[in-house]
Amino acid sequence: MNFSNITMSKRIRRTPYTDKIEECGVTGFTVVNHMLLPKAFSRSTEEDYWHLASHVQLWDVSCQRQVQIEGPDSDKFIQMMTPRSIKDMHIGQCLYIPLIDENAGMINDPVLLKLDNKKFWLSIADSDVLLWAKGLAVGLNLNVSILEPEIYPLAIQGPKSEDLMVSVFGEEIRSIKFFNFKVFDFNGEQQIISRSGYSNQDGFEIFFSGYDNGELIWEKLWQHGLKYNISAGCPNLIDRIEAGLLSYGNDFTIKNNPMECNFENYIKDLNHEFIGKKALEKIKLKGVTKKIRGIIFDESPCPSCTIPFPVFSKNKLKIGEITSGIYSPKLKKNIGISMILREYSDVETEVIIETPDKIKRYGVINLLPFTK
Amino acid sequence: MNFSNITMSKRIRRTPYTDKIEECGVTGFTVVNHMLLPKAFSRSTEEDYWHLASHVQLWDVSCQRQVQIEGPDSDKFIQMMTPRSIKDMHIGQCLYIPLIDENAGMINDPVLLKLDNKKFWLSIADSDVLLWAKGLAVGLNLNVSILEPEIYPLAIQGPKSEDLMVSVFGEEIRSIKFFNFKVFDFNGEQQIISRSGYSNQDGFEIFFSGYDNGELIWEKLWQHGLKYNISAGCPNLIDRIEAGLLSYGNDFTIKNNPMECNFENYIKDLNHEFIGKKALEKIKLKGVTKKIRGIIFDESPCPSCTIPFPVFSKNKLKIGEITSGIYSPKLKKNIGISMILREYSDVETEVIIETPDKIKRYGVINLLPFTK
Repeated sequence: MNFSNITMSKRIRRTPYTDKIEECGVTGFTVVNHMLLPKAFSRSTEEDYWHLASHVQLWDVSCQRQVQIEGPDSDKFIQMMTPRSIKDMHIGQCLYIPLIDENAGMINDPVLLKLDNKKFWLSIADSDVLLWAKGLAVGLNLNVSILEPEIYPLAIQGPKSEDLMVSVFGEEIRSIKFFNFKVFDFNGEQQIISRSGYSNQDGFEIFFSGYDNGELIWEKLWQHGLKYNISAGCPNLIDRIEAGLLSYGNDFTIKNNPMECNFENYIKDLNHEFIGKKALEKIKLKGVTKKIRGIIFDESPCPSCTIPFPVFSKNKLKIGEITSGIYSPKLKKNIGISMILREYSDVETEVIIETPDKIKRYGVINLLPFTK
Repeated sequence: MNFSNITMSKRIRRTPYTDKIEECGVTGFTVVNHMLLPKAFSRSTEEDYWHLASHVQLWDVSCQRQVQIEGPDSDKFIQMMTPRSIKDMHIGQCLYIPLIDENAGMINDPVLLKLDNKKFWLSIADSDVLLWAKGLAVGLNLNVSILEPEIYPLAIQGPKSEDLMVSVFGEEIRSIKFFNFKVFDFNGEQQIISRSGYSNQDGFEIFFSGYDNGELIWEKLWQHGLKYNISAGCPNLIDRIEAGLLSYGNDFTIKNNPMECNFENYIKDLNHEFIGKKALEKIKLKGVTKKIRGIIFDESPCPSCTIPFPVFSKNKLKIGEITSGIYSPKLKKNIGISMILREYSDVETEVIIETPDKIKRYGVINLLPFTK
């Protein structure tokens, strides 16, 4: 049975690397931004986790689509879309920014790249930020051009990623600081490479430009990676949850605001104008009724969290639901991420989790991340 | 192997009917609007096609999310979003409308329902129209409220659908005209039922309100449907292509305009103001370089069209690609939908199709639909 046929049609877009991923024995895909994201290979999530923590992996994260915003009003426009100030952002920097709507509901949580003073990319999670941005810009009649460029990100993640990247692109790679990018040549084309990625490990993302050369860059990284025990991979659920990396659509949605998502540090000073400012100021003043928290819960490995696990207080009130959960082999406990009612969200608060296997599991509230 | 686990997490939303669908032996899902759409059951697409053409099927089309636009400016706002005039639309009517952006690029092709003079639903294909509409409304500072209501459409399709619906909701069902809806009671709740659906058959859609009663309505339809040989189903690719029903993301995208998609009838008179008007007028004046066409091609059944089939002219120029294609047991030929270069788009133009099995197939251009 070929899983890749299950969800495939042009609407669920393939990437420049999908053929390679299939050669590597992908066993499942999910869909993000109308594009395939590999979800599993032949080994288990735990085997994959240990490999990621020890070696280097090549991930097809083309589904991190870029929304390019360019033009005279581009900086002003970006600033209107987020409560986080971009005033001090420099060219070559990456910034994690919440995008909110008029009610301060989360539209997305992209990484913003400043390519030059009047050109930006939003590297997005799973919602059509392109349409939100275009709608806003048309409505506001701003002088910006907005499009989805032909960029297909590849992530190189794991402790050996720096050595591998140096081997392909040279020593200059080592000078890239976390959440910064530099421009490198590949086969005569300029490519943006950042030190970043959706993992708890050191890593890089190549914002690869040009569909047709996708297999070339994949092959080159693969060949150079053999001596580092390279493997094809994908965001690893254990690693991601341990790191407290949130997933839009899972751990929070448009119904949540940045305060609920623990984004206080990004919204300390609301000195600039932005969409949702009034709503967010009101929320800051009034406080929120729930917060995202970690939960550590008892030792028998929990089943796959395909449907959220309800979370109860000791007095049997439903106080949240685990939207990302898995067994952590490092902590030898289950760990999960849940929006939790404020009054039950203090660290060490005791909670009860009901998993689909009908086992009652006891746990305690924790802050994110689970490990540093 | 449980396919349903492959792509599942809260981000890929389940529906009120997913448990029922799994009981019915679903073998594959796809993802539309961040929600599961059943794609296959245990029988073949062709067996499913004959069943659909003879009996009645129950489809979980919850992924046809509704974007509700309500408020003093709602009618004006809807009219700004589409080149099709809604001036003469009456309450209780459904209207297929292209939504376009400032360049006349297709944002989506929803069905618009007029619930009252100041309340509308857009029943959408696969793109976040919610974000587009919200962005526009915020930018334009219009007095509308926009949200995704808790509506989970069920489609009842096939020649026996009317009898089944009468059996559940009464004789009044027969009075619903094509692309109109009426309101019916189910367990004390008001439910909107239209005569419509993404098939070539007679059929209805229940815009079911309320997640929690989803299994109740499913069960009731199922019980009443047993005497009509009811079956769980999903949009059938043979039936859909024969009917010339387009699929957003497959057959056209934001890079296409309404003229290319054969929507001339909806944009005859551009007397009102709307986004993209200038661009569309220019396109109308200048003409388009390509048009969606049907193609009938040679008799050995073509492989699954998971990757578009390139289409060539007799002089070996690439003139399009088939984005939806399958063998039609009724026509005893392969049929496909392709955007085709204008000068090769006349009916009966001879073309060559290359399928992944490396077979060269000869075909001719046809208009859509293939069958009436």
